Amino acid sequence: MIAVLIIGNGNVANHLYNAFKNVKQIKVSKINSRVLDNVPLADITILAVSDDAIKEVSSKIKNPFVVHTSGSVGINDLKSTSRKGVFYMLQTFTKEKKVDFKNIPFCLEATHKADEVILEKIASYLGKNIYHINTAQRKKLHVAAVFVNNFSNHMYTIGQDICLENKIPFKILSPLIYETALKAETLSPRQAQTGPAIRNDLTTINNHLESLNEEHKNIYKLITKSIQNGAKL
Amino acid sequence: MIAVLIIGNGNVANHLYNAFKNVKQIKVSKINSRVLDNVPLADITILAVSDDAIKEVSSKIKNPFVVHTSGSVGINDLKSTSRKGVFYMLQTFTKEKKVDFKNIPFCLEATHKADEVILEKIASYLGKNIYHINTAQRKKLHVAAVFVNNFSNHMYTIGQDICLENKIPFKILSPLIYETALKAETLSPRQAQTGPAIRNDLTTINNHLESLNEEHKNIYKLITKSIQNGAKL
Repeated sequence: MIAVLIIGNGNVANHLYNAFKNVKQIKVSKINSRVLDNVPLADITILAVSDDAIKEVSSKIKNPFVVHTSGSVGINDLKSTSRKGVFYMLQTFTKEKKVDFKNIPFCLEATHKADEVILEKIASYLGKNIYHINTAQRKKLHVAAVFVNNFSNHMYTIGQDICLENKIPFKILSPLIYETALKAETLSPRQAQTGPAIRNDLTTINNHLESLNEEHKNIYKLITKSIQNGAKL
Repeated sequence: MIAVLIIGNGNVANHLYNAFKNVKQIKVSKINSRVLDNVPLADITILAVSDDAIKEVSSKIKNPFVVHTSGSVGINDLKSTSRKGVFYMLQTFTKEKKVDFKNIPFCLEATHKADEVILEKIASYLGKNIYHINTAQRKKLHVAAVFVNNFSNHMYTIGQDICLENKIPFKILSPLIYETALKAETLSPRQAQTGPAIRNDLTTINNHLESLNEEHKNIYKLITKSIQNGAKL
């Protein structure tokens, strides 16, 4: 039986707590990061708090093994004085939406080799995609995640805005969005690239630019240029 | 029995021909656009040729009802003198990959009301997502498709490049890519937006910018600004 303590009250803390509750090999408890007077002892203490709070909260924890769950914070930003680690789940967590941990990539790091094994073990109770990612890699991965998640999603937002302005139901684009994402799993995205930019189809590119507002025009130009630069690699 | 003639030899022509072959209510034939001396008569003649070729090829067709399959070409760019239409399938066609027509949106337009009904009929033999989209809307839809397909895919390419540079397997990002696309179907993408840009988390944004090359930095800045502009709407 592994005792896991989760500190935090956000989406990650709550989803993770609910997931561990269903694992019989784990005894999980959870406390709020504002009440740190009587922190229960645990084999693994998981700080699922905001990036800004990690230093301060960790400095108050005396438990033997403290990990955080952030993609962009270094392992040494934990200011606890005991063994340290990172338990980063690379997924977008929404309050209302159930999380399927089976497919979530767990990115693990620990200051002690034996602790990596413990983190692997508790991750394996939840899912199957387990990676050892150090702090430098994790910070890069976090940037990559911003591109594929936040920035792709913004491309959907622009698509939706164009649809709304022209009285076109946005759901008409759903199969294309879905197919594009699916293709990235089977083909390399660079090889999967299609469209006027990669074909250097100037007639279509100029027609598109004429039809866009200034903000969307600037984005269209910059990404088109970047697609064309990439094609030369 | 409806006689359909497809003119062309690209991905769209071939996938569409194979799909119609399985429909018992349709008698389909296909010819190359370079051999237009003896064009067989047909109820519907579908030009599945490149955008640039539509004017010239259509000017040589005497059949009673001629349609093209392009997202960015107007209905009146057909230079056939008979009835005109558009049969635009909003999906990315790859040579090697089987196309599931069931979920493809068919965007239909015709100069004659009765012809819209015929186009609806042949589309309904292949799929269930049928829309009436006029030339002005279709051109806008084509731009929107570039954003959600080509530009999202380029965000995946950048994510992949960052992974490669840092010896991280790109497949670690697949569940996130997939979840982001799935979310756009259920939530409005503007509402689904997460990440440092929408939170205006300047510490993370600056850390990210420092770690990127010039090209990726410019894209990061511009999209972050656009996400923040959109949040004010």
